[in-house]
Amino acid sequence: MSQSLEEFRRFRESLNERILQSDHRDIKRFFALDTRAYEDGALPARTKELLGLVASLVLRCDDCITYHVVRCKEEGVTRPEFLDAFNVGLVVGGSIVIPHLRRAVDRLDELDAADA
Amino acid sequence: MSQSLEEFRRFRESLNERILQSDHRDIKRFFALDTRAYEDGALPARTKELLGLVASLVLRCDDCITYHVVRCKEEGVTRPEFLDAFNVGLVVGGSIVIPHLRRAVDRLDELDAADA
Amino acid sequence: MSQSLEEFRRFRESLNERILQSDHRDIKRFFALDTRAYEDGALPARTKELLGLVASLVLRCDDCITYHVVRCKEEGVTRPEFLDAFNVGLVVGGSIVIPHLRRAVDRLDELDAADA
Amino acid sequence: MSQSLEEFRRFRESLNERILQSDHRDIKRFFALDTRAYEDGALPARTKELLGLVASLVLRCDDCITYHVVRCKEEGVTRPEFLDAFNVGLVVGGSIVIPHLRRAVDRLDELDAADA
Amino acid sequence: MSQSLEEFRRFRESLNERILQSDHRDIKRFFALDTRAYEDGALPARTKELLGLVASLVLRCDDCITYHVVRCKEEGVTRPEFLDAFNVGLVVGGSIVIPHLRRAVDRLDELDAADA
Amino acid sequence: MSQSLEEFRRFRESLNERILQSDHRDIKRFFALDTRAYEDGALPARTKELLGLVASLVLRCDDCITYHVVRCKEEGVTRPEFLDAFNVGLVVGGSIVIPHLRRAVDRLDELDAADA
Repeated sequence: MSQSLEEFRRFRESLNERILQSDHRDIKRFFALDTRAYEDGALPARTKELLGLVASLVLRCDDCITYHVVRCKEEGVTRPEFLDAFNVGLVVGGSIVIPHLRRAVDRLDELDAADA
Repeated sequence: MSQSLEEFRRFRESLNERILQSDHRDIKRFFALDTRAYEDGALPARTKELLGLVASLVLRCDDCITYHVVRCKEEGVTRPEFLDAFNVGLVVGGSIVIPHLRRAVDRLDELDAADA
Repeated sequence: MSQSLEEFRRFRESLNERILQSDHRDIKRFFALDTRAYEDGALPARTKELLGLVASLVLRCDDCITYHVVRCKEEGVTRPEFLDAFNVGLVVGGSIVIPHLRRAVDRLDELDAADA
Repeated sequence: MSQSLEEFRRFRESLNERILQSDHRDIKRFFALDTRAYEDGALPARTKELLGLVASLVLRCDDCITYHVVRCKEEGVTRPEFLDAFNVGLVVGGSIVIPHLRRAVDRLDELDAADA
Repeated sequence: MSQSLEEFRRFRESLNERILQSDHRDIKRFFALDTRAYEDGALPARTKELLGLVASLVLRCDDCITYHVVRCKEEGVTRPEFLDAFNVGLVVGGSIVIPHLRRAVDRLDELDAADA
Repeated sequence: MSQSLEEFRRFRESLNERILQSDHRDIKRFFALDTRAYEDGALPARTKELLGLVASLVLRCDDCITYHVVRCKEEGVTRPEFLDAFNVGLVVGGSIVIPHLRRAVDRLDELDAADA
């Protein structure tokens, strides 16, 4: 894994800021919609983060997977629950998902090690 | 919507049967894995069906969406919960998801009308 | 082509209305962002509709293609310009785009016949 | 299956002709490249048609699948070979491929019935 | 961003050369079609590069995005025009496009800094 | 190419092991199905590896491409056969495949150099 979680966060924060500073009203609104999509509503934030994780797995976006793995962990998702969600992503999306699953598990191990 | 829910079900059942009758051991095992992925486990069936629904939305597969809309309803997912899940799919997958969202809402209306 | 342009429009309008009536604030906002994305801005509406058309081609969404073919024609896009845009979509997206290209050309012929 | 193999062929032929008549030089060249990609070369046509079939399955394009199922059958691909190729497509592409697999098997049955 | 624009260019040039040297006639013809797709025609090169950029965004290919960002800048596309094109890509393709948007903006900043 | 073939192999092996150790029965079964999909059957392993390679190309997964390039070479696939398979992937998947084709050719050169 070439990029640490810390580098990922720094690049993400810094570029998001540059995008929002460019002051394109509708891009800013899209970013706001994206944030709110995962807040408590009819479905709780925890479930929505799992939805975001599996959507990211089947669409095979490593950065999105990393983001939702971190958020799911903050919402208290347990290792067996992660594995069940990974399994849904794997069955729906097929073996093409496996390289992303490897990196997701690596991120999860990195987060668990930081906790220990 | 050219195909009724009833036609969808008949075609799905009949062809699944023909696929399983062809007796390719590993295709049969894949179908078994697919069924089990949505059964109660570390995550409950209800959450897993929502995961399947959003994965199907962002991958834009009408038949898969129809199947998971039906199953989510059987698991007691409410209209506001459906809308929250649709919203996650829409934000993650973008406006290209909208035609599938229209058909998903049409299916849901069809199911609700059948209930009434 | 199983569905006429008129049927497409009716289904689209009627379902969009049902989605907006369901009154999910953020889904409504997404629909508003989607509309505004194609309005005159730094880039003119005509160019943005061409962008929407080619994005729909490479993502292979027939309903989205139909919608943008209609809008491009309203913006005065000529047949040779359509063909150039189709060619970009075909080269970027590959032969998997061809079935959608066939349906796009059929829609364009249908629109031209209605004009004549 | 809403469209018969015969209707599929007629629409395909007629629209391909209209596209080629529009006389866009590079679209015509793309169509020529597409045809030649499946001709005997370092790999035989039979293998190339199987490659086209599995690529169409994982990209989930029904028209492309139908086309390559027909061509594979002309190249003498047997039912057990089809099932092995379908299985690769299913494992790589996941359960999202299943609705297309059902339609592929239905096409194959239609072709076999026409032979009988 | 692990790879500089200069490294990207060198790898791209060197491998394109190796591919063309392998002397597969139809791969060479595909590369020629790809080049010509963005030349002035019924639509000007500038518009075609914007089409290539948005197609690359929604298909989420960083290398293709980098290439078209560079070419758009050469064609005189302004920052507000880039943002409008990014917004179309974001709305059509959804939040899954955001990591690629971050890298696109980073490339654009890199190009502007080189100009200054 | 930031990651050597050796690093790719080590990361792949080590993470696959961690995934299998997590002891999720159905994830393990999926991995077993994935392995068996490429074994001799009605179609020989060599053909199946070519199917896996082209599926990986059109789905644009570098790790999967690397894996199948290595396996195809072990099965005795020759350079002209690789080029024919690459050409099918390129025509079906379009120019968006080109960056992955560059990396595939680079891997193949790396393997050939190791042989020499």
